[in-house]
Amino acid sequence: MNSADVLSLCKRRGFIWPAYEIYGGIAGLYDYGPLGTAMKNNIIEAWRRAYTLGEGFVEIDSDTIGPEAVFKASGHVDQFADKLVTCTQCKTPFRADHLLKDKHPNPGALNFEELDAEIAKHGVACPDCEGELSRSEEFNLMFKTTIGPGSAGRVGYLRPETAQGIFVNFNSLLRYMRERLPFGVIQVGRGYRNEISPRQGVIRLREFNMMEAELFVDPNDKTWPRFRDVRHETLRLVPNEPGDKEVVMSLEEAVEQRVVANETLAYFLWFTQRFLIMVGVDAERLRFRQHLKNEMAHYAADCWDAEALLSFGWTEIVGVADRGCWDLSRHIEFSKVDMSVLMRYDSPVEVEREVIKPKFNLMGPEFKAKAKLVGNALEESDPKEIKGDHIVVLVEGSPLKVDRKYFDVVKVKEKVPGERVVPHVIEPSHGLDRIMYTCLEHAYTEKQDKEGNYIVMRLSPISAPIKVGVFPLMGKEELITPAGEIDWTLRMNGVLTSFDDSGSIGRRYARMDEIGTPFCITVDYQTLEDGTVTIRERDSTEQVRVRKDEVVAILTSLLCGSADFVSLKAK
Amino acid sequence: MNSADVLSLCKRRGFIWPAYEIYGGIAGLYDYGPLGTAMKNNIIEAWRRAYTLGEGFVEIDSDTIGPEAVFKASGHVDQFADKLVTCTQCKTPFRADHLLKDKHPNPGALNFEELDAEIAKHGVACPDCEGELSRSEEFNLMFKTTIGPGSAGRVGYLRPETAQGIFVNFNSLLRYMRERLPFGVIQVGRGYRNEISPRQGVIRLREFNMMEAELFVDPNDKTWPRFRDVRHETLRLVPNEPGDKEVVMSLEEAVEQRVVANETLAYFLWFTQRFLIMVGVDAERLRFRQHLKNEMAHYAADCWDAEALLSFGWTEIVGVADRGCWDLSRHIEFSKVDMSVLMRYDSPVEVEREVIKPKFNLMGPEFKAKAKLVGNALEESDPKEIKGDHIVVLVEGSPLKVDRKYFDVVKVKEKVPGERVVPHVIEPSHGLDRIMYTCLEHAYTEKQDKEGNYIVMRLSPISAPIKVGVFPLMGKEELITPAGEIDWTLRMNGVLTSFDDSGSIGRRYARMDEIGTPFCITVDYQTLEDGTVTIRERDSTEQVRVRKDEVVAILTSLLCGSADFVSLKAK
Repeated sequence: MNSADVLSLCKRRGFIWPAYEIYGGIAGLYDYGPLGTAMKNNIIEAWRRAYTLGEGFVEIDSDTIGPEAVFKASGHVDQFADKLVTCTQCKTPFRADHLLKDKHPNPGALNFEELDAEIAKHGVACPDCEGELSRSEEFNLMFKTTIGPGSAGRVGYLRPETAQGIFVNFNSLLRYMRERLPFGVIQVGRGYRNEISPRQGVIRLREFNMMEAELFVDPNDKTWPRFRDVRHETLRLVPNEPGDKEVVMSLEEAVEQRVVANETLAYFLWFTQRFLIMVGVDAERLRFRQHLKNEMAHYAADCWDAEALLSFGWTEIVGVADRGCWDLSRHIEFSKVDMSVLMRYDSPVEVEREVIKPKFNLMGPEFKAKAKLVGNALEESDPKEIKGDHIVVLVEGSPLKVDRKYFDVVKVKEKVPGERVVPHVIEPSHGLDRIMYTCLEHAYTEKQDKEGNYIVMRLSPISAPIKVGVFPLMGKEELITPAGEIDWTLRMNGVLTSFDDSGSIGRRYARMDEIGTPFCITVDYQTLEDGTVTIRERDSTEQVRVRKDEVVAILTSLLCGSADFVSLKAK
Repeated sequence: MNSADVLSLCKRRGFIWPAYEIYGGIAGLYDYGPLGTAMKNNIIEAWRRAYTLGEGFVEIDSDTIGPEAVFKASGHVDQFADKLVTCTQCKTPFRADHLLKDKHPNPGALNFEELDAEIAKHGVACPDCEGELSRSEEFNLMFKTTIGPGSAGRVGYLRPETAQGIFVNFNSLLRYMRERLPFGVIQVGRGYRNEISPRQGVIRLREFNMMEAELFVDPNDKTWPRFRDVRHETLRLVPNEPGDKEVVMSLEEAVEQRVVANETLAYFLWFTQRFLIMVGVDAERLRFRQHLKNEMAHYAADCWDAEALLSFGWTEIVGVADRGCWDLSRHIEFSKVDMSVLMRYDSPVEVEREVIKPKFNLMGPEFKAKAKLVGNALEESDPKEIKGDHIVVLVEGSPLKVDRKYFDVVKVKEKVPGERVVPHVIEPSHGLDRIMYTCLEHAYTEKQDKEGNYIVMRLSPISAPIKVGVFPLMGKEELITPAGEIDWTLRMNGVLTSFDDSGSIGRRYARMDEIGTPFCITVDYQTLEDGTVTIRERDSTEQVRVRKDEVVAILTSLLCGSADFVSLKAK
């Protein structure tokens, strides 16, 4: 099995379709068909519930178009770029580092000159037409547009991540949360990245779906109350030490041995792992890899990628980072809006601090009419800014050197209600399309029977798009009617079904297996006699007869995991 | 109450926030805060369930960025435009028709010359600075961008509607639906419209949320099986007849009297009405207005707007149209891909038809080496294309005139399995933000008590973001613990709660009333004695005591409408 097999099934059965095929398609754009959309909704809903109902996070939904100022602050205008070379003959664009993949150990780290030199040294030509390549240049990966018409229009970008929408709303969120830390915010939605030449199916998309969580914490307190409850749970970790060695350790060990930076980060690694397994990522093909030191953003306190083993190799599907105060600090700097939070002490604390006290009596002769202004400027200055025998203050917008003889430094006592901090951010950021694809590839199973090979998608009942197939054994009215009633009752209880009355029953089971439907109900002639139907489970292919008036309750329990098929059968 | 009051509450409590406020904001962009997002999700989910579980529609999720070809076909490149004038002094752009609102009965229908003439005639100047206005020009309302880098990049647009993503996937959808009509497809997501100068809060947005349904039907059969079940239900209609008269009629009457074009359209008007009322639109402030003849698209067979009465006046919130075969025909024309559907007869029918039969024996001398090609071209031509004594056929890409003497027209009999049709489209298209806003404005109620005015948002329990407030009567551990347990149990059953232990109980009820929380549970000292808690209903402010182990079941029934508070209280 390789990714082409999985994508082929996805296309044939309506999970994922290449976008705009009737117009020749566009690389890096895919649409979700009926099954893919239902599955995606199921994964989003499981994620949303875990964060909002389970952890008390709130959800927001911000715009996908943003003005330049936002992405200046976030760093995307200056740094969200790849290095581009273009074929001088056929004009095809390429990512320079991709062309050196087999020729250099770490082409992603090379600068423009080094890339050009390596390309020349290895005689790399256009992979399509063997033409000569241009020099490398920078290409910003944000989609650019204009907001508003004509000369009044302003530059806008499609967001490269949902996170910035949370950061720019921080003060409104803080107010909503009644000014208390920690609090968490999630957002689900589109992200955009104008890839130079997208490959690898749905792994590298120009338009993708993200699920991001931003947890704002007190920088002085990165403990997490529920850490205690799960401290003995284990994680499969690849710390950033030479040798890339995998270790399995408990959360408690990971934090105590400083493998993971803090309790909150460790808790959300575990939380992410639990979520991924719940929606259908194979636990045996999941690990957390710490970013290498040169890979980690300079501001990040720690960063781990949840990686899934796919036919492409280990692939990042979630990033969990302690981003420090970087994001909010940048927006504070660029917007000039205060986003600090007062962390109140239990009761106000008396503190002693040094302040500058101007000697107003000496200042008149020197500063004349401005004496008052200079005095005020001195009072507002921090004694730390004194340089030897003078200090520089701003008076009416201009710097002014004031000699040490015009002020004293004195100690004063103050009642302080708390400390103002810029919150740190712990961010689990999920690539939804990659999670989807992982669930699909991990579920893909080839089976053999007397008629040949067929495919069973062992999707988690939580993610599976269609939950139940409902079949009358034969296309006869007396069977279709009761089957239709069961189908309707299930739907009215929120269970998405597929009603199918055509073809042999084996063929219908196979159709459901191929799209991962966990259970099938068949109405047969015995149903008319004793009111029972069969429930057939996908993975074991075993069947059990139950009373039809119990079908909804039984299936609801099976689907949410509060009952299991083996026990049902034993009963 | 006016829209400013509603938006002010929405901002203060976290429903809707102006986007990018810390960077000065951008007109026409709003973010949904925690309450708005939860409410929006609730409305989407109710809509999705109605269409997918209730009507068997499937859902897809297509890209928001599309190539130019798609929007050439859809007509948006050429026609999705407003007429723009710009102030020659301050450079502010305006919609030309908006400036003539009070000066002309129908400024939207004027062409460029007429607009310029009217502006000159009435001496209209810049509303901001009184400067002179430019001549009117066209401004396309799609956000434009470039897909891919440099010279290899191609023009792309942000979709102005989700519908096109469904149409371009029609063939894949048809295959998924096993080649049978009718079938319906829904999509929820962003739409974009680069408004010249957006006003009216969330009514006219540059980035908005749509919920669109496209029902593909046999053009020869616009009946709908479930129409029968609801034919006596009534609609409030304003047909496009002089006088704008409102009539209330049953679906059956509306179709019989040809007020509404067909059964399917009438059914989905009713379906839309039921949905809107369910999520909280006031039935008394809802009507369906038929498009005026000059307002209706030339291809539309019929079109109705669901209009809500808002503080702005009657406002379109949903459009329900029979779009004929327009959309698919355009994509067939532009993509050259066949999108017709074979409507199978019960059994194949023998038909006689005329075909062209080349006289190959005469053709050799005239057409030489090309005789075979010309013959084939003749065989593939339709006899209707014969013009008197000749026919023009395409041979190797060039037109060729062939004299009548080189072919005969003969009758042949064929077995035909069915008729190929291009489906017609019935489209209920929902402006989600407008529906949201309508629910908020219709829910907004000012009440008075001894402490002054306060606001109750009488949101539908289905839409309300927070379903239940959970309060310990006092902030004491012995009350907080059992209240916390109830809160957790509700959350684990999917019910979003707000736990609040601060301030007087009256203050806490008021906080919940203001955000539309339908029910509050209070744990008091009696709870510790007899295990009962109070449930308080928002609109009646009445309370009832129930056993705390029944709370989840009771609230679940109250929230989904299978139980009501009055009966509960009576019991």
